[in-house]
Amino acid sequence: MSKKFDSQKLKEFTFEIFKAIGCPEDQAQIAAWCLNQADLRGVDSHGVARLSGYIRLWEKKRLNSQPEFKITHETPSTAVLDADLGLGLVSASKAMDIAVEKANQVGTGWVAVKNSNHFGIAAAHAMKALDHNMIGFALTNASPLVSPTFSKSRLLGTNPIAVAIPANTQPPVVIDMATTTVANGKLEVLQRKGELSPEGWTQDKDGSPSNDPYILKKGGAMLPLGGDREHGSHKGYCLGGLVDILSAVLPGANYGPWVPPFVAFLDPPENPVGEGIGHFIGAMRIDAFRPAQDFKDHMDNWINTFRNAETAKDFEKVLIPGDPERETTAERSQDGIPLLEPVIEDLIELGNSLNVSFDKITQS
Amino acid sequence: MSKKFDSQKLKEFTFEIFKAIGCPEDQAQIAAWCLNQADLRGVDSHGVARLSGYIRLWEKKRLNSQPEFKITHETPSTAVLDADLGLGLVSASKAMDIAVEKANQVGTGWVAVKNSNHFGIAAAHAMKALDHNMIGFALTNASPLVSPTFSKSRLLGTNPIAVAIPANTQPPVVIDMATTTVANGKLEVLQRKGELSPEGWTQDKDGSPSNDPYILKKGGAMLPLGGDREHGSHKGYCLGGLVDILSAVLPGANYGPWVPPFVAFLDPPENPVGEGIGHFIGAMRIDAFRPAQDFKDHMDNWINTFRNAETAKDFEKVLIPGDPERETTAERSQDGIPLLEPVIEDLIELGNSLNVSFDKITQS
Repeated sequence: MSKKFDSQKLKEFTFEIFKAIGCPEDQAQIAAWCLNQADLRGVDSHGVARLSGYIRLWEKKRLNSQPEFKITHETPSTAVLDADLGLGLVSASKAMDIAVEKANQVGTGWVAVKNSNHFGIAAAHAMKALDHNMIGFALTNASPLVSPTFSKSRLLGTNPIAVAIPANTQPPVVIDMATTTVANGKLEVLQRKGELSPEGWTQDKDGSPSNDPYILKKGGAMLPLGGDREHGSHKGYCLGGLVDILSAVLPGANYGPWVPPFVAFLDPPENPVGEGIGHFIGAMRIDAFRPAQDFKDHMDNWINTFRNAETAKDFEKVLIPGDPERETTAERSQDGIPLLEPVIEDLIELGNSLNVSFDKITQS
Repeated sequence: MSKKFDSQKLKEFTFEIFKAIGCPEDQAQIAAWCLNQADLRGVDSHGVARLSGYIRLWEKKRLNSQPEFKITHETPSTAVLDADLGLGLVSASKAMDIAVEKANQVGTGWVAVKNSNHFGIAAAHAMKALDHNMIGFALTNASPLVSPTFSKSRLLGTNPIAVAIPANTQPPVVIDMATTTVANGKLEVLQRKGELSPEGWTQDKDGSPSNDPYILKKGGAMLPLGGDREHGSHKGYCLGGLVDILSAVLPGANYGPWVPPFVAFLDPPENPVGEGIGHFIGAMRIDAFRPAQDFKDHMDNWINTFRNAETAKDFEKVLIPGDPERETTAERSQDGIPLLEPVIEDLIELGNSLNVSFDKITQS
């Protein structure tokens, strides 16, 4: 069962909560915007449902609500940003600001972030580049839940790749994909429905294929995109590994099994190999390659060609990356954001503990 | 049945063939090196077996053996290279030289190439960055054989992504992956064995799943990494699309269904939307982010951690991207390169037509 809430008001509640733990106004605003973007785009696992998770990390002093962001190393086209254990929601957004500035100067900008925390949905950060006629990139590593091909150890996160590419009259192409067969949230959906998961999504603690949607709680692991070797899981493993290396080995964050867990009830691994978790953010100015208008006209043609491609048997239409999320955004901006009962209860409790009334803000 | 040939001598034969069609010495050398790298690494479809394909394109005047490479647009960190219909083997290599130069100046270099041809194996170009303590990237689009998720039209190539990352005492991480479930060559192996292909590799002309390894010749298509929607094929489609956009829409090459076919017996599509095929080449200086030695030490740790991970049931060891190709290279450098009888006949004939004796060069 779910109930719908006005998107704007949920965002205000989120803003108040972040302020209540001491975030400066501008940072609370960015963080609230990020979580709201996830809710609007239909990525329910990364929206307000996750708000109390961030607060619990702050309670454990694993998250700094008043970070001093510092550039610790840079060249004209690159930088490393030390996020001072701040919200990843904010540090990734700052990193994109720096990347855009560098791209304005020398064509492209690439900012690796260390000492950070979970950055929400990758797409939100990548899409910030669109307003500047740039292609935006956002990668992050994450808590280890995924086994490399042939292994039963959990060594990688779902390590997403997001890329946002502007078009002209068409909406932008927005890719945002975990490098696993499915995102974790899909398993939770099956748990609620009481259904089994398809082959290729997970394996059990011995590394044998599993259909149990609860298998992660029993020592199992998610599988890299491809599922098994015959279907190219080594490629998903390559992509997840690449994201880990660019996001963490490059700036000096924790990588592989050392990535600190998002959930506050699990302690971070001992003997860390870096600081916090890491992100890799990029911006490429279109007109560093060709006039932006030319590119965007051809993007319209690319998009129209793919959208109007002949459909395979039993399918209605061919989608462009970002289509489903844009449709959901239009719908939820209008009709509100559906929250499940446990999430609502969690938010009410969170509000009570920080003197922010959930009712007052969310009801008109 | 196959016979083994000395790697060095095969490379010399390839060099002589490229010289015979008019390539300048330095370009013939780079091109021969590229094909040889494919043979050494075990990517048989992209080695000398493909040599006559390039020559046939030259015969059709679709390949220029004496191109004038021109930078048509640039910023401190980017360039567009017009390859003047030259060999992609050479233009991608030149593009990496330019990218490395730019990375030396401003931290990173990104070169999009238009008006090019097939560039061989992506890994060869990406790996050139390793000597400079840089991370190398090489992407290319290719003839349309792949359908987007939900479609039966062939709109994308196998569009590979290669990334080479240096380590210290460990060999580098070298990723080189088609963005499809499998590369085309795997279907040819099944054809020779008379076996069916697994679900998730291809579909028939109506877009229904197929097990027929000959299905591409019957109007079928390859599937994006993931295979079907339930296993994440929309992610493979995203990746293939991204490679197409960066490689071709960005510099102004042909994209999607307009990419000219590699085989000379098929004419390029009418009304091209750009020039030739396109590549996207990048180099990132490690010390634009952190001291190279620090990074490489942590890469050793990353590699050791993954290589020594616990194996899943029924598997012997966990691999690092690039391990299998490096083992094959060691073996083939020693024992020679196996060529199938039809490939040998093709090379003899090719040699005869261009007055380069296959026997004289390949036999000691």
